Amino acid sequence: MAAEKAAKAAKQSVAVVGGKKTDDIIGITVKKTENFSAWYQEVVLKAEMIEYYNEISGFFILRPASMYIWATIRKWFQERIEAMDVEEASFPMFLSSKSFEKEKEHVEGFAPELAWVTKAGDKDLEVPIAVRPTSEAVMYPYYSKWIRSHRDLPLRLNQWNSVVRWEAKQTTPFLRAREFLWQEGHTAHLTEDLAGEEVLQILELYAGVYEQLLAVPVVRGRKTDKEKFAGGYYTTTVEGYIPSNGRGIQGATSHCLGQNFSKMFDITVEDPAPKAGEGAKHIHVWQNSWGLSTRVIGVMVMIHGDDKGLVLPPRIAKLQVIIIPVGINKNTSAEDRTKHYDQLQELKGTLKKAGVRNDYDLRDGYTPAWKFNDWELKGVPLRLEYGPKDAAQSVVSFARRDTGEKGTIALSALATEIPALLEKIQADMYAKADASFRSHRLVLTEWDKVVPALDSKNVVVIPHCLQEKCEDQIKESTKGAPDEMEGPAELRAPSMGMKSLCIPFEQPEGIVKGETKCLNPQCGALAEKWCMFGRSY
Amino acid sequence: MAAEKAAKAAKQSVAVVGGKKTDDIIGITVKKTENFSAWYQEVVLKAEMIEYYNEISGFFILRPASMYIWATIRKWFQERIEAMDVEEASFPMFLSSKSFEKEKEHVEGFAPELAWVTKAGDKDLEVPIAVRPTSEAVMYPYYSKWIRSHRDLPLRLNQWNSVVRWEAKQTTPFLRAREFLWQEGHTAHLTEDLAGEEVLQILELYAGVYEQLLAVPVVRGRKTDKEKFAGGYYTTTVEGYIPSNGRGIQGATSHCLGQNFSKMFDITVEDPAPKAGEGAKHIHVWQNSWGLSTRVIGVMVMIHGDDKGLVLPPRIAKLQVIIIPVGINKNTSAEDRTKHYDQLQELKGTLKKAGVRNDYDLRDGYTPAWKFNDWELKGVPLRLEYGPKDAAQSVVSFARRDTGEKGTIALSALATEIPALLEKIQADMYAKADASFRSHRLVLTEWDKVVPALDSKNVVVIPHCLQEKCEDQIKESTKGAPDEMEGPAELRAPSMGMKSLCIPFEQPEGIVKGETKCLNPQCGALAEKWCMFGRSY
Repeated sequence: MAAEKAAKAAKQSVAVVGGKKTDDIIGITVKKTENFSAWYQEVVLKAEMIEYYNEISGFFILRPASMYIWATIRKWFQERIEAMDVEEASFPMFLSSKSFEKEKEHVEGFAPELAWVTKAGDKDLEVPIAVRPTSEAVMYPYYSKWIRSHRDLPLRLNQWNSVVRWEAKQTTPFLRAREFLWQEGHTAHLTEDLAGEEVLQILELYAGVYEQLLAVPVVRGRKTDKEKFAGGYYTTTVEGYIPSNGRGIQGATSHCLGQNFSKMFDITVEDPAPKAGEGAKHIHVWQNSWGLSTRVIGVMVMIHGDDKGLVLPPRIAKLQVIIIPVGINKNTSAEDRTKHYDQLQELKGTLKKAGVRNDYDLRDGYTPAWKFNDWELKGVPLRLEYGPKDAAQSVVSFARRDTGEKGTIALSALATEIPALLEKIQADMYAKADASFRSHRLVLTEWDKVVPALDSKNVVVIPHCLQEKCEDQIKESTKGAPDEMEGPAELRAPSMGMKSLCIPFEQPEGIVKGETKCLNPQCGALAEKWCMFGRSY
Repeated sequence: MAAEKAAKAAKQSVAVVGGKKTDDIIGITVKKTENFSAWYQEVVLKAEMIEYYNEISGFFILRPASMYIWATIRKWFQERIEAMDVEEASFPMFLSSKSFEKEKEHVEGFAPELAWVTKAGDKDLEVPIAVRPTSEAVMYPYYSKWIRSHRDLPLRLNQWNSVVRWEAKQTTPFLRAREFLWQEGHTAHLTEDLAGEEVLQILELYAGVYEQLLAVPVVRGRKTDKEKFAGGYYTTTVEGYIPSNGRGIQGATSHCLGQNFSKMFDITVEDPAPKAGEGAKHIHVWQNSWGLSTRVIGVMVMIHGDDKGLVLPPRIAKLQVIIIPVGINKNTSAEDRTKHYDQLQELKGTLKKAGVRNDYDLRDGYTPAWKFNDWELKGVPLRLEYGPKDAAQSVVSFARRDTGEKGTIALSALATEIPALLEKIQADMYAKADASFRSHRLVLTEWDKVVPALDSKNVVVIPHCLQEKCEDQIKESTKGAPDEMEGPAELRAPSMGMKSLCIPFEQPEGIVKGETKCLNPQCGALAEKWCMFGRSY
């Protein structure tokens, strides 16, 4: 409820006073540590990343501030999959209800969330059609048609589109929306090895989006059978962590579908290397699918943002540097003012030439302080202040958005120092988030420490049997007891039971095969792997 | 019906013989001059641009061969609108039925084509929602919210997405589909002049997509009131021409919406320069919208393709050059073969370094002739043949896809000659299409010549009064009399009446104001402008 109130307040922050529109920025009214979800909703609204689509609940408008980030990610990822010979395609957004018959297990998971078109114009459709929640059932009949020989392999197609999943749960900008943008790659290979190799290549690209672009650390791993993609063979994942509430969050997943779908959709090739003495044999192809969505933007906001608003990593900031004139006032002569503005123009040009995305803020009628707040709210990584005093010393003053650190840089060194400083900000933001995730990823060997660890906003890495039944037990037995926790609800760790997030590829030492037991005291089975668990989104 | 049969044949061209898949390419079985629409459907299918989506009629899959072209266009256009400070946004794909109340005139045009979602999961929605046919009604309520002051102008947003229009008419790949990809730009400006300037800038970019990328000539002009965008102020357009049937085709449109929508959606700013003595006044903003769709690809195919299949302009061809080894046969020694393949590898590398998108075709079990046909079908602009005889002379042989012209190029000159030849092909393709359009755009001043001109596959430019009623009469009175025309239906020009295509910006001489009459003999009004009319898509 508090979150809703804050969102409402944010929406109304543009007040119409006496019929006149005002430009007052109220700024973020909720502290990140006090009410995290209200804070988040205020930030994405006031930084102009998101607008709520009032006409239909659960839908959001992505404004230029967020689409720039998505476009940057798209370009980065697209270049890399193109180099892997993944081609772009575009399949229809609708699925006939007839298409569902082939792949029940996969479909059952999505059925409650399907949006159904039943009418066109004023005529009822003969057969209702669903808006795609994902495109396996749209695409694979054609894979069956197009793949005629092993020479047609690998077939690797990707599309950038939006999908619709009519979530019943509370929606949240970027993290859970009824329509979201993503890419979905669907590939077919001759062998399990070739498919498996690609699964990991793609996962590494997903990690790259988080780590290299968004300055967000992730843990690479494999999902347990309970948590894998319905109908797939195995799922790999990059998992993130939200320090403010200690919740884990799935970052992006790269699935090996095995031969499950190729059997359902009859996607086969003749064995190019049949065993001696055996006749020609048909092989079902090995398939992968992998997707990355606009969720990444939400994770980035949650991790880096602060009480002043958004904090953007320089590599994905549309505006990396904002230049604000200071020390110019009513007493400044017209001549001095013109001269100063010419210098600002030059500054802007110098930075542009150095490849820095920058602008200056010459808006009349606002104080420098107001402008500082405005650009801080919007997350611009670096502010440059330039006034007559700076000019006299041939320097500019700077203020880092991430740390607040201030200093000066010689005008003569701008073209090298500013790009270097931006890269330093990027690296520092990652390092800070990484340190936070590492210190809240507790490797535990005593069950009694698990729930207290969760209550202190940690995720845990524990020896586990990897059995679904055991995961169900764990989820039940790790529910928090909110009544026993101190302080208002907004400040507490979430109280839901923990889920397995992934089996990290990087395994700690210490599990002795055939000896170490699963940490769940109700289980008693042997531990297979260290598994990361957490309360999660 | 012939068209349907051909499409069916094309779909079945991959025959399964005795349980074994075969790779026989049958090639295009219909001549472009004999049955144009059947030819077109075969080309887009067999060149692997399109797949029919069998599950739901009127939908098509865009395969990599067409998505590459769309991606190239998208990149070209995106760069240019970015330079104009148009920002990217993403609005929901659904419209609540409540949203329609504000803008009846605009909506009425789309109502018969709306796809309605009435159910989510197994629950009926309280209010049905429509899939967007275009996004005015989705976006403009937020323009009203976001535009608070003249400082927020211009607001310029663009989105790349797909829209759904449930066409009742026969669908055709690229030209008319129930879902299609496009970009839609929506902008708001302070004055009519500023809006008008942008309308033309965008129109020029659309012309650039056709002329510079697709080698397709277009006529720039303004739509008559009858043909303009419903609810808009005026519409500018680029109009193309399909020589095979003499039909005009709308290429892309850039609309000035005037203040019509800003009045409906209450998008206002305070006048920044009120007249002396008058109080602050609210001004309704001036709006534009503009869109370019995947239709462009279909126009390109229709104009350049021939009886062998697709012909691609080099600038948008994913593969500009295909290298095919020749003169290698059973008698070639393993050593010679290896040496030859090494040379091919080098050739490929040289071209790649020169920025030429190229590949070689080393497929076993196919003759060079078969490969020639295959790549001709797919439209690759330039074929290079390389055999021992070429090697002995230090040349490669080439064959142009557009003209069939053959020749040789010295190996030492490849890095400069091939890019130059590709540019020449691009220029020649445009010149040929331009000459064709020019010679079939007849400036007429005698009414009796109009219908014969249409029957001979021309469009006409005539003095016109620009009145809607007159256009209706003209459409009626220019219907062909198919029974009197010779030959089978497929060979004839279409028999529908002609529509106004545009009022060309480049006006011929000869209309004397207040004297020259509208050419329609039933009209009698004075001519306002030369207007281009044609039977059209």
